[in-house]
Amino acid sequence: MTIDDPSPGRARSLRFGANYVPSHGWFYSWLDFDAATARADLGDLASLGMDHVRIFPIWPWVQPGRGHLRRRAVEDVRSLVRIAAELGLEVSIDLLQGHLSSFDFLPSWTLTWHHASVFEDSRVRDGVHAYVAHMVAELASEPNVFAFTIGNEVNNLWPSNPTTADTSTAWARDLVNCIREHARPDQHVVHSLFDDAFYAPDHPFGPLEVAQLGDVSSVHSWVFNGTSRIDGPLGPATTGHAAYLAELATACGGRERPVWLQEVGAPLPDIPVRDAEEFVRRTVRSVTALPQLTGVTWWCSHDIDRRQLDFPDREYDLGLFTVDHRPKPIARALRDALFDARQTQPTADEQRAELTAPSNIMHDLAGRESVAPGSEFHRQWVAASSAVPARIQLPPHKGQLDPQ
Amino acid sequence: MTIDDPSPGRARSLRFGANYVPSHGWFYSWLDFDAATARADLGDLASLGMDHVRIFPIWPWVQPGRGHLRRRAVEDVRSLVRIAAELGLEVSIDLLQGHLSSFDFLPSWTLTWHHASVFEDSRVRDGVHAYVAHMVAELASEPNVFAFTIGNEVNNLWPSNPTTADTSTAWARDLVNCIREHARPDQHVVHSLFDDAFYAPDHPFGPLEVAQLGDVSSVHSWVFNGTSRIDGPLGPATTGHAAYLAELATACGGRERPVWLQEVGAPLPDIPVRDAEEFVRRTVRSVTALPQLTGVTWWCSHDIDRRQLDFPDREYDLGLFTVDHRPKPIARALRDALFDARQTQPTADEQRAELTAPSNIMHDLAGRESVAPGSEFHRQWVAASSAVPARIQLPPHKGQLDPQ
Repeated sequence: MTIDDPSPGRARSLRFGANYVPSHGWFYSWLDFDAATARADLGDLASLGMDHVRIFPIWPWVQPGRGHLRRRAVEDVRSLVRIAAELGLEVSIDLLQGHLSSFDFLPSWTLTWHHASVFEDSRVRDGVHAYVAHMVAELASEPNVFAFTIGNEVNNLWPSNPTTADTSTAWARDLVNCIREHARPDQHVVHSLFDDAFYAPDHPFGPLEVAQLGDVSSVHSWVFNGTSRIDGPLGPATTGHAAYLAELATACGGRERPVWLQEVGAPLPDIPVRDAEEFVRRTVRSVTALPQLTGVTWWCSHDIDRRQLDFPDREYDLGLFTVDHRPKPIARALRDALFDARQTQPTADEQRAELTAPSNIMHDLAGRESVAPGSEFHRQWVAASSAVPARIQLPPHKGQLDPQ
Repeated sequence: MTIDDPSPGRARSLRFGANYVPSHGWFYSWLDFDAATARADLGDLASLGMDHVRIFPIWPWVQPGRGHLRRRAVEDVRSLVRIAAELGLEVSIDLLQGHLSSFDFLPSWTLTWHHASVFEDSRVRDGVHAYVAHMVAELASEPNVFAFTIGNEVNNLWPSNPTTADTSTAWARDLVNCIREHARPDQHVVHSLFDDAFYAPDHPFGPLEVAQLGDVSSVHSWVFNGTSRIDGPLGPATTGHAAYLAELATACGGRERPVWLQEVGAPLPDIPVRDAEEFVRRTVRSVTALPQLTGVTWWCSHDIDRRQLDFPDREYDLGLFTVDHRPKPIARALRDALFDARQTQPTADEQRAELTAPSNIMHDLAGRESVAPGSEFHRQWVAASSAVPARIQLPPHKGQLDPQ
């Protein structure tokens, strides 16, 4: 997420990368890490002109016992990071997986007889802290690691792991500090949540965590959250959703704080194949109009082999590349859209409309419904963003009326 | 569990072995299988004159996805089996771990968003079936594999995986048949449950499963189940508990069916170190007096390193050997006790007293409490077994009164 990209001739530095889903054996392949396969996969991404990948170690395979951190598992992550370096790719490492594509990976020391909340229980928190500290201490020295994220959408680990909004925030703050303690000063610390943090009134993870913890606000834009039902694959609500989320994050985190579109994808059936390239173009154009936007990281690099079972159907075909390394049309569309975006100045704040949200979602968590996709405010924002995405500001925080 | 042991000069063939708990990294070591370490561990057991080991692959590390069976994981199991062969040890393979020493290992495709009962859900049962079929088909050809067990005390996977008595029986029968289909005819098929199957009135796994499915009844004798509180570490209830369970299994399975004491150990604090050797001697003498007893497999081979966290305290010190390969006094006591037992004829049925249980626990599951440790019947059995363990028979099954 650095903004000092030295590439000459660009109007603008914008990171361009992918969430790395291995082409063979999905994330199960960590158990049999193969450098040649990983090199072929990352080579696909480098061939698109990407500058980074986001990678996902599997927590219980690194730390199968609370007191058992596997050296080789960490070395496999290091090998992947170095393969990326050879290909000119920087790396963002998500630590606590945790959740990936509907599957939760949780160590046996948090399950059944040992069940205790990842968020609430001091024993488990000690274990998580030890894991995060160990991973960052081991991997921060790799020169091409530019960011650490606590974990991919850790709010998916709830409700199987109980928590409250206050507990979640304290938990994330502790881990952000833990990463900071072991990371290099130039490495970004990131906390990523799926968008219920912004939209769901009873969700025990709030926008404050995304927008104020760590160095950058990360947003994950998935139009299967209801947005695509508003106006279809190419409607402005759908193709503007990434920008909408990014503006909400900025409303919460302030205009100076960078925003990273850490995940965005074109899921079936919401985005039919015939519309996917145009969806990519419009989405990228919309979100990269925002000056606070530092990069786009597509979900995901590679399709999932249909012989892998039990995934939600939409997960199989999200790749830019097939499992046999053929680029899909959206791969080129994405590459071209990012190339265009880098040649274009973002739209200055003063050239954009500004709307005030109906509730201060940072502090009034119950009010989050008022900004959810399909809400009156969201529709107003879509209407006001026909040329460029409108700014959003939050109303003043009425502390005395705040149920939080 | 063959009874045609060719060793000359023995009055009797009795298997003598251990449940293999790796000295380094506990079962987490499967993720970094090291042949040299395994050879040193199994060498300890061979040095005691053992003839077999029982081994425990970890299910979710072999089958992390329902459609993803890892070749290398199976080859690691094969390597361990062949190391055992080199040391003259036969091997019994437990398949579905599942449960080990308070930890449950369950794949992500059975957890959280994918939660479904291992016993009840057809999708998960299909996955388990595929795993069991694959493992047995791959490993049955190893000449020194003498038995397959469905899994270690799979009834510990309940209640996190709901089931009923009928469902559990059908589930186990299906897997016994699956193993039979792929195993050699001389290999035994075993179903192992912890003793709530015999004692707990509301437990949804019953004695029928242990005593009638597969080729041999396996019993797991753990005196921390309440027995040691009856008369202390060296009292007849405590040191006779393995024989009591074995007799209950025979009451349920018939006098012709062999019984394997597949797990027995000397847990702290129930059995203090100062009493452990005598506990071993008395337990072995008592249980090997039974003609149906085919072998004793001690839990376990090696202690657990105290740097491993979250185990119940008693689990750390159950080994015959320390983590640095020193035999503990009970190792020699066990070896000598088995040597003595092999020189001694079991006590013929007609020389033993016989008691009739107060309820037919095969069919009247609610009546199981009447034979639990501390029950009037159990105390009568202990009194009648002062010289040699008394036989047990079940009363006729009163079908019309049977709540099952």
